[in-house]
Amino acid sequence: MNKINEYPSKAKCTHEQNGYPCFVPAQRVLNLIGKKWSIQIINVLGNGNQVRYNDLREQLRRGWKKNKISDATLSARLAELSEEGVLIRDIHPEIPPKVEYSLSEKGEELAEALQPLIDWTIKTCHE
Amino acid sequence: MNKINEYPSKAKCTHEQNGYPCFVPAQRVLNLIGKKWSIQIINVLGNGNQVRYNDLREQLRRGWKKNKISDATLSARLAELSEEGVLIRDIHPEIPPKVEYSLSEKGEELAEALQPLIDWTIKTCHE
Repeated sequence: MNKINEYPSKAKCTHEQNGYPCFVPAQRVLNLIGKKWSIQIINVLGNGNQVRYNDLREQLRRGWKKNKISDATLSARLAELSEEGVLIRDIHPEIPPKVEYSLSEKGEELAEALQPLIDWTIKTCHE
Repeated sequence: MNKINEYPSKAKCTHEQNGYPCFVPAQRVLNLIGKKWSIQIINVLGNGNQVRYNDLREQLRRGWKKNKISDATLSARLAELSEEGVLIRDIHPEIPPKVEYSLSEKGEELAEALQPLIDWTIKTCHE
């Protein structure tokens, strides 16, 4: 890992203080995606997928006999990811209203940046 | 982000159940490094650095006028990272005992896998 205070000026953070590296945004994002089910949600919505709430829940629950994701948890994660700008909630004006979730451009970038970490955790899981 | 259940068989996880992707290890690691100060600690100890407790605390506190890391928090993070095998606690049999912290091989790999995510958060921080 490079020292952040050796970063090129392009990446120089306005949050830097006395040469202290800016980990504030990394911290916030890691905290968000470290919460239960966040990365699974990002995975299901990745690659441009638009998924309705019930389908999303179904995909997340697939394969789990117990410890299935609850509606309360799924709603909380969707709200947090949406607030962070990672996820788009697309409401179609139909009756009944059709709501679809997808990753924003920021979300797709996050998914891409996250992939090496996920690859590594899966690799080490088998060592 | 690739669908994990499209992973090559090499990365196939024993935790997989009915084709459900194994995010358990990613979840655990993300939860750990999502905690306050974890990534800063990994950053200070990266690149083969061996750092004594007081030096580590000093480096983490540099630039902060308030919200400095407390001894309780630093000790908790060091214990957690050590338990996960990310960090090595090297005790030199001297009087008084000299304790140095460094990243394990697993820790260096984690730092490398984490770098794209940190780069991305810093980049988006300035947009």
